[in-house]
Amino acid sequence: MIDLEQIHDSIASTPSKIVMLVADGLGGLPHPDTRKSELETAHIPNLNALAQRSACGLTTPVEVGIAPGSGPGHLALFGYNPLRYIIGRGALEALGIGIDLLPGDVAARGNFCTVDDEGLLTDRRAGRIATELSAPLCERLDRIEIPGVQVDVFPVQDYRFVLRLRGEGLSEAVEETDPQREGVAPRPAGPLAPEAARTAEIVQQFVAEAGRLLSEEQPANMVLLRGWAQLPNLPDFGRVYHLNPAAIAAYPMYRGLASVANMQIIPTGMTFGAEVDTLQANWDKHDFFFIHYKPADAAGEDGDFDGKVKRLEELDVHIPRILELQPDVLMVAGDHATPAIMASHSWHPVPFLLHSKLTLGEGVDGFNERACAHGSLGRIPAETIMLLALSHSGKLAKYGP
Amino acid sequence: MIDLEQIHDSIASTPSKIVMLVADGLGGLPHPDTRKSELETAHIPNLNALAQRSACGLTTPVEVGIAPGSGPGHLALFGYNPLRYIIGRGALEALGIGIDLLPGDVAARGNFCTVDDEGLLTDRRAGRIATELSAPLCERLDRIEIPGVQVDVFPVQDYRFVLRLRGEGLSEAVEETDPQREGVAPRPAGPLAPEAARTAEIVQQFVAEAGRLLSEEQPANMVLLRGWAQLPNLPDFGRVYHLNPAAIAAYPMYRGLASVANMQIIPTGMTFGAEVDTLQANWDKHDFFFIHYKPADAAGEDGDFDGKVKRLEELDVHIPRILELQPDVLMVAGDHATPAIMASHSWHPVPFLLHSKLTLGEGVDGFNERACAHGSLGRIPAETIMLLALSHSGKLAKYGP
Repeated sequence: MIDLEQIHDSIASTPSKIVMLVADGLGGLPHPDTRKSELETAHIPNLNALAQRSACGLTTPVEVGIAPGSGPGHLALFGYNPLRYIIGRGALEALGIGIDLLPGDVAARGNFCTVDDEGLLTDRRAGRIATELSAPLCERLDRIEIPGVQVDVFPVQDYRFVLRLRGEGLSEAVEETDPQREGVAPRPAGPLAPEAARTAEIVQQFVAEAGRLLSEEQPANMVLLRGWAQLPNLPDFGRVYHLNPAAIAAYPMYRGLASVANMQIIPTGMTFGAEVDTLQANWDKHDFFFIHYKPADAAGEDGDFDGKVKRLEELDVHIPRILELQPDVLMVAGDHATPAIMASHSWHPVPFLLHSKLTLGEGVDGFNERACAHGSLGRIPAETIMLLALSHSGKLAKYGP
Repeated sequence: MIDLEQIHDSIASTPSKIVMLVADGLGGLPHPDTRKSELETAHIPNLNALAQRSACGLTTPVEVGIAPGSGPGHLALFGYNPLRYIIGRGALEALGIGIDLLPGDVAARGNFCTVDDEGLLTDRRAGRIATELSAPLCERLDRIEIPGVQVDVFPVQDYRFVLRLRGEGLSEAVEETDPQREGVAPRPAGPLAPEAARTAEIVQQFVAEAGRLLSEEQPANMVLLRGWAQLPNLPDFGRVYHLNPAAIAAYPMYRGLASVANMQIIPTGMTFGAEVDTLQANWDKHDFFFIHYKPADAAGEDGDFDGKVKRLEELDVHIPRILELQPDVLMVAGDHATPAIMASHSWHPVPFLLHSKLTLGEGVDGFNERACAHGSLGRIPAETIMLLALSHSGKLAKYGP
């Protein structure tokens, strides 16, 4: 792959505008009865018409056979090698609930749990304690003070929370305290590298203090911590591509992923209609827009084939409003497939289209897995679509003399 | 490419079972008269029906335009990067005749040859001396004793033999003694690296002793040695993939390649029917089976188009018996193409199918080069099919949170 820093000097800032519409979990698989995928089943006249005058293909998010999480799925679309740049679980959990994460911060995914009188785990999830009960416990833990570091605890859902440590010289190389089974004591958070000694000490202090504060609680009287993570050191998206990028996303996770790339986050509403309103209202202020559509993925994860079809149809309705803005490049991409028949992310290549003035004669019949497999782009790493966008919008000079 | 060690932690051992059927030299080219390839010509109703409910594609064994030998062809199918893991000629020759090769052993391919009174080569192949004549000479050389190393000589065919050195601290970095032309003396086996000094000395002793033992023989009175090779240090297939793998192959070469990956070799008969019997009899004992079919390649190498068609038809007959076992994943792959019109291995991408519960709606019309080119998998590196197998059998977790 081309290194982002390598192409930096070949990119020019121009007035042309790029829209990257990411339909989360876009790709699917045929329904066993109809042998048609969600996209093939859906009534999506606008996307189908667009595919007929676009360069189409299939993107491979990470590698053949590898199903990606949301983190690597989006980093790849932004042009970051997903095997090189890793967002750890704690950091992604923090981004997912909209917590501000700075370079150097360390985040962990926390569970409330239950231990017996001898300190042995009796329930790793404290009876899946409800958010109403766990949120006040988070408030209590949030008050823990440890010299030299800022400690914050944020409720997620049910028994889950995020612990964020902020300060100088912290490290993510800390052992997980969750032994992943019951009947044993939580493990000490030892350092996995010499530079993590102080962070490990801080974590041990936090755990001890948490145990004291929760000792009288039912059912959650202890915490487990895992997925220690700092943000990866990503090249700045705007600087590398000479763009002034903005992100429009209803869900915090995707705003978080865009903020890691240092895109400007524009506040928006919870519907895709609201997101397109935001796009229109800010059209003059940026030359790159990442706009995220979540509902298709959610339906796919639920195993709801008809629901996913419907969510794709609801996306389709908004395509004309985006086209009215006359972007120089409009890409419709997915971070991964979420076939309803699997009810999970999958490894399948994802339909992709890129529309520009140059792609009018390149189209395929429709926007779906089978048609895109025969598109002019073929199968490409997701990591390359930013290069296509820059080229099609006249921003990327030829390579070499 | 994803590093095998990198995905190790994402793989779970599950009860699901994977069968990798390798039809050696599977791919072909159209016959000039009919414009149909061997697979397109063959009556293979079972493979064609299977392709209709499988994910199909074409695998590239090593790289576009590169025709692989059996070694890299199979290593790629097993998921080992064939440019990184090399099985040298001497080692492959040893595996090909079923010689036990341990890590650290050094093997060379030997020729009996003829030298004149001045020690200059007059025939590099000793008149292509027949096996009946060369085998007793091998026995004589096998008795050579060199302190600190075990020396074994095995007949191959005609003028060819294998020399195996076993002992501590041996190195493959030894010069070849074959000057590749006549009228000159065999070259001394000098060390190519400092650590090979002792091995080179051992080889020189062996050559001197062989010259003495053969000096009165006609026509073979000397030996040439080349292709010094040790086994590459392959990650253990079963450990990396969390599988309990077995290999079923009639020919020693393929058992040898599987043993290099540390698969368990199950003894079997010389026909594919016997191999499938072995598969059935051992079904409960393993969760991964590599089963090898040789005859199509042999016919291709002979330039026998009709013969290759027939061999493919004979393979097809056994497909239902494999399907009866209800493997969770059945792959039909080739290590390379062997087009009969070329009478050799070739660089062409090779038809591939993967059948699982998830691939019912993804099929193509038939199992051949043209149909598979339009399959849902597209063109993929052969090295990735293990990832597909693991994903389709529910053993590979998603990458990244």
